Amino acid sequence: MRNKNPNSAKKLQNSPTDEHWIWGRHPVQAALANPNRKILRLILAEGIDHDVNLVPKPETLPKHEITELLPSEAVHQGFALLAEPLPKVYLEDIISLTKSNTRATILVLDRITDPHNVGAIMRSASVFGADAVIISDRHAPSLNGTLAKSSSGAIETIPLVRVTNLVRAIRSLQKQGFWCAGLDSEADTPLEDLKPAPYQTIALGAEGPGLRRLTREACDTICKISSSGPIKSLNVSNAAAVALFSLNRLQQN
Amino acid sequence: MRNKNPNSAKKLQNSPTDEHWIWGRHPVQAALANPNRKILRLILAEGIDHDVNLVPKPETLPKHEITELLPSEAVHQGFALLAEPLPKVYLEDIISLTKSNTRATILVLDRITDPHNVGAIMRSASVFGADAVIISDRHAPSLNGTLAKSSSGAIETIPLVRVTNLVRAIRSLQKQGFWCAGLDSEADTPLEDLKPAPYQTIALGAEGPGLRRLTREACDTICKISSSGPIKSLNVSNAAAVALFSLNRLQQN
Repeated sequence: MRNKNPNSAKKLQNSPTDEHWIWGRHPVQAALANPNRKILRLILAEGIDHDVNLVPKPETLPKHEITELLPSEAVHQGFALLAEPLPKVYLEDIISLTKSNTRATILVLDRITDPHNVGAIMRSASVFGADAVIISDRHAPSLNGTLAKSSSGAIETIPLVRVTNLVRAIRSLQKQGFWCAGLDSEADTPLEDLKPAPYQTIALGAEGPGLRRLTREACDTICKISSSGPIKSLNVSNAAAVALFSLNRLQQN
Repeated sequence: MRNKNPNSAKKLQNSPTDEHWIWGRHPVQAALANPNRKILRLILAEGIDHDVNLVPKPETLPKHEITELLPSEAVHQGFALLAEPLPKVYLEDIISLTKSNTRATILVLDRITDPHNVGAIMRSASVFGADAVIISDRHAPSLNGTLAKSSSGAIETIPLVRVTNLVRAIRSLQKQGFWCAGLDSEADTPLEDLKPAPYQTIALGAEGPGLRRLTREACDTICKISSSGPIKSLNVSNAAAVALFSLNRLQQN
């Protein structure tokens, strides 16, 4: 039977085509600071200090009532807002944006579907100054509150580009001068030996299957994060953080 | 009212003093390979190939029946086992174990309570050949199935040492020649400038509050993972992976 309460139906719809909740101090503050984010409601827990000029004007609720508005297990810290999804970003936008920069870094995610991992990767992309994250539309998690929370608000500043064909996206970037390095724990070349290009793409695959064959074939080089212990591969968000850190170091040398 | 079914009561008890489920291909294979792990039941999904000499002899069940035995959202891939907790490991054991090595790396976790983070950190510790992870008893998550899954089986090979006093543990390690570097995104010294000691400890604090004052004061040095974007700090498991990667590189140079 369908749920006839339109509000609770809406609460459950976290699709990219609909409004959704964002919670937690950092994600909410980042959304408020994002001029491209249309905010429908802002809710703060009683007793939380705030700028009196906040837009929209916050509603104040007891913490437990905020909890009831959100998915179970949402750690909101007294901050919640209802927002429209961010405007769609296209690959062409990223290419134009990075064109005048002396260097650019773009992450390509192949079938990484867990919002916690994608969120943590966007957070690392923000920390290490990457320009965008590209993901295939069919495998992308919704840009919802869970992803926003895991990203610590990075979804407001790092563009997440959904494309229908990941290989075509890599090829388009290569035509613009990007060099694509795929990560694979079975590769021969260590990441530290990578000679990074000023325009660099790093492709990461899902844990277990790794990069799909066609994605891997589209890469200019395949390298590994060297392991010295019994387990060979990192959690994918950890691999992304290590790759971005290493790339930053290599580009500076 | 208490649940009178002893089996379902047992299913919910994942305390470190009691038997618990482990699930997923890698965690189950790692537990089977660990001579210190006492396994009570081994369950494989119908159709999974296995060594006929497996001990204990596996029970075969349809996948959905395995799902019913485990906590909700457990991604078991057709592998589950019921095990006794691992024998307790003491700091003295780690000190004896590393004494004859030319180098050793130990992670110290200050109030990192999320089993997914602790699991991912243990996985990275295994990938980068670290020797142990130390955590304060009061803040440690149970060494249960969630942690085992997030660690991809690393809990079977990387000792997780629970101590009552983290500062005292750092001091004991320092007396044995360990040098302790604490991570803090507000520090002045970049991690890359660290001159690693052959015996190195890395201390990480919970996201937000970071290292507690006394933990920080016990460290020999405090350094940061340099950020170049709007967000200053990584997810804690990502920070641990970057620190271990960087340390490995520095120790090799």
